[in-house]
Amino acid sequence: MDIFTVTNNSSDTRARCGILQTTHGQVETPVFMPVGTRGSVKGILPEQLQQVSAQMVLANTYHLLLRPGPDVVEALGGLHRFMGWPGPILTDSGGYQVFSLSSLNRVGQDEVEFVSHIDGARIRLGPKSATETQNRLGADIIMAFDECVALPCEKQQLRDAVERTIRWAEQSLAAHRRSDQLMFGIVQGGTDKELRSYCCEELIKLNFPGYAIGGLSVGEGHDDLIATTDFTAALLPEDQPRYLMGVGTPRDLVKAIALGIDMFDCVMPTRNGRNACAFVSDGTIKLRNEKHKLDTGPLDEQCSCYTCRNFSRGYLRHLFLVNEMAGPILLSLHNLAFYHELISQARNAIKQDNYAPWAQKWEHYNVNQD
Amino acid sequence: MDIFTVTNNSSDTRARCGILQTTHGQVETPVFMPVGTRGSVKGILPEQLQQVSAQMVLANTYHLLLRPGPDVVEALGGLHRFMGWPGPILTDSGGYQVFSLSSLNRVGQDEVEFVSHIDGARIRLGPKSATETQNRLGADIIMAFDECVALPCEKQQLRDAVERTIRWAEQSLAAHRRSDQLMFGIVQGGTDKELRSYCCEELIKLNFPGYAIGGLSVGEGHDDLIATTDFTAALLPEDQPRYLMGVGTPRDLVKAIALGIDMFDCVMPTRNGRNACAFVSDGTIKLRNEKHKLDTGPLDEQCSCYTCRNFSRGYLRHLFLVNEMAGPILLSLHNLAFYHELISQARNAIKQDNYAPWAQKWEHYNVNQD
Repeated sequence: MDIFTVTNNSSDTRARCGILQTTHGQVETPVFMPVGTRGSVKGILPEQLQQVSAQMVLANTYHLLLRPGPDVVEALGGLHRFMGWPGPILTDSGGYQVFSLSSLNRVGQDEVEFVSHIDGARIRLGPKSATETQNRLGADIIMAFDECVALPCEKQQLRDAVERTIRWAEQSLAAHRRSDQLMFGIVQGGTDKELRSYCCEELIKLNFPGYAIGGLSVGEGHDDLIATTDFTAALLPEDQPRYLMGVGTPRDLVKAIALGIDMFDCVMPTRNGRNACAFVSDGTIKLRNEKHKLDTGPLDEQCSCYTCRNFSRGYLRHLFLVNEMAGPILLSLHNLAFYHELISQARNAIKQDNYAPWAQKWEHYNVNQD
Repeated sequence: MDIFTVTNNSSDTRARCGILQTTHGQVETPVFMPVGTRGSVKGILPEQLQQVSAQMVLANTYHLLLRPGPDVVEALGGLHRFMGWPGPILTDSGGYQVFSLSSLNRVGQDEVEFVSHIDGARIRLGPKSATETQNRLGADIIMAFDECVALPCEKQQLRDAVERTIRWAEQSLAAHRRSDQLMFGIVQGGTDKELRSYCCEELIKLNFPGYAIGGLSVGEGHDDLIATTDFTAALLPEDQPRYLMGVGTPRDLVKAIALGIDMFDCVMPTRNGRNACAFVSDGTIKLRNEKHKLDTGPLDEQCSCYTCRNFSRGYLRHLFLVNEMAGPILLSLHNLAFYHELISQARNAIKQDNYAPWAQKWEHYNVNQD
């Protein structure tokens, strides 16, 4: 059975709708995955994820490896039972966090040694152990172990990272032991077309069921993000899912969908929510701002989420000023509803073959106004 | 129309069931009110309060007076719309917090001057202003301004506080301006029978629609709490609601119901929940304990709350160890469900005239084991 079926193509962009089959159910693409780093989407319960129409969530292998460890997750019934989330889950490979969060000791041919950001323990991770960890966690989609570098970066360093990523992809596939989990490859190469192209070619030879574009949203800026996604997505197989990792703002998502991206994850809706920043129809607003003090209206008149149906901007501001937990909870809930509504509208626009005109209005969506 | 109707009396105790009528709906008594200090039950949304069958919530006048202020609550539609809670609300008078949280400057005949614990502002509060504040907040039940002293305490100090409480009760009633709000009087007097008796007599002359027993759970211990409740409750009118303020443990509640108490509020379920302490059938458990690490069972096999239906003790422990918000949220939710189930069982036992035998099994319920 094909794990991915394209159901609709847009005629004026490369956007498409599809169905992704996983062990824990099917997913309509394009899909946005909320991030449940340590086995919990911060402040949001699984029933609330269902309320906002989330289909699939992401959890971080690096964080779960450190605490509570794959043995504990396994003993507690695997990631789905552990988190109380019955739907599809994706785990990343740990590569991104190893290179961004930990103190790296050494990058070897088949392994990385790093110092845990929690307790200073020395831990080794490589394609074999990252895959074994993900097999034990039990997500529906797991990722090949990759090396992600911060940008800008010297070409030789980027080339070395790509070479390791390709070799590690092969080793990850070889280590993979569970047929109920799909393993995706990750294309690296920064903003360099030659390296992206080379990485795509080599990974496609390995016949992954899906491919991710990694190594973006790491300092390259919006234009390079979109240009690299444009170039790279076009090199990936039409009939397989394409996942743009760690992206992004509403405008990023809308543009990337037009380039043929099917899957996204990003902490932005929940992180911004915790910081009193709400996504609304005409941009982002900062709830701590004095101007919301007496505002009896909802965050967003257009939104039908629980937060917007029940609470005023003035009340939400009060919650943040007195540090009530309900503030971060209600704003994260709204922001997730906003992202899922955005993606749902994108799917509808593709189905109605109306994507380019629909996408246009998001061109000027600002994330730092108010 | 009577605001309170006793529907069932227990034949072997003084426990009773009743219906309390408020502007925002009727309440079955005995009732437990979760505490929403600053207009939010910490970590718990109104829809979750409904999930656990909460009927009525409490908010603190002192905290709302300081932030955001009654003018803001009023401008945002009053306390019910502000909080997004459509059911009955009770506000306390602020007396307890003025005497426990703030630096008191001066206790005068008609007013108290204190220094705000937030920003050091000098604020005056008395029966007139506390009542005006509560009129503006707009709860269904409001409380007369009282003086609450910590125990143990010299008799003369206690006597002075009772005299002021009686005088302030009369002044509170005189200042009360809204017929859609019920004002209850608060009996003070520590553990002193003479003073409690005197305070009851004087307050009953003022014809409040309901009476609270205040000044307990302030250091007197379980036996004195129960003995004073026993003595005082018997002096209050049979046909009016009796509210025991700030109490307590499951055992306290079960005993106080047997003495004819109809209403309770306490921070214990939510505060303990935030501190990883769960109420379960056979006592309290501390979730941080290593022994729960690999426990796949729910907090409480007997409980059907959202937390117990979906999450293991091992997962809940993990959430606390990594400081995920979901830990405090899920435990607070369970503890509130536990308290409401307890009260619901108490009502059923009264209706089946089986209260004394039912209550017996709670005699040995420990809150500090594990």
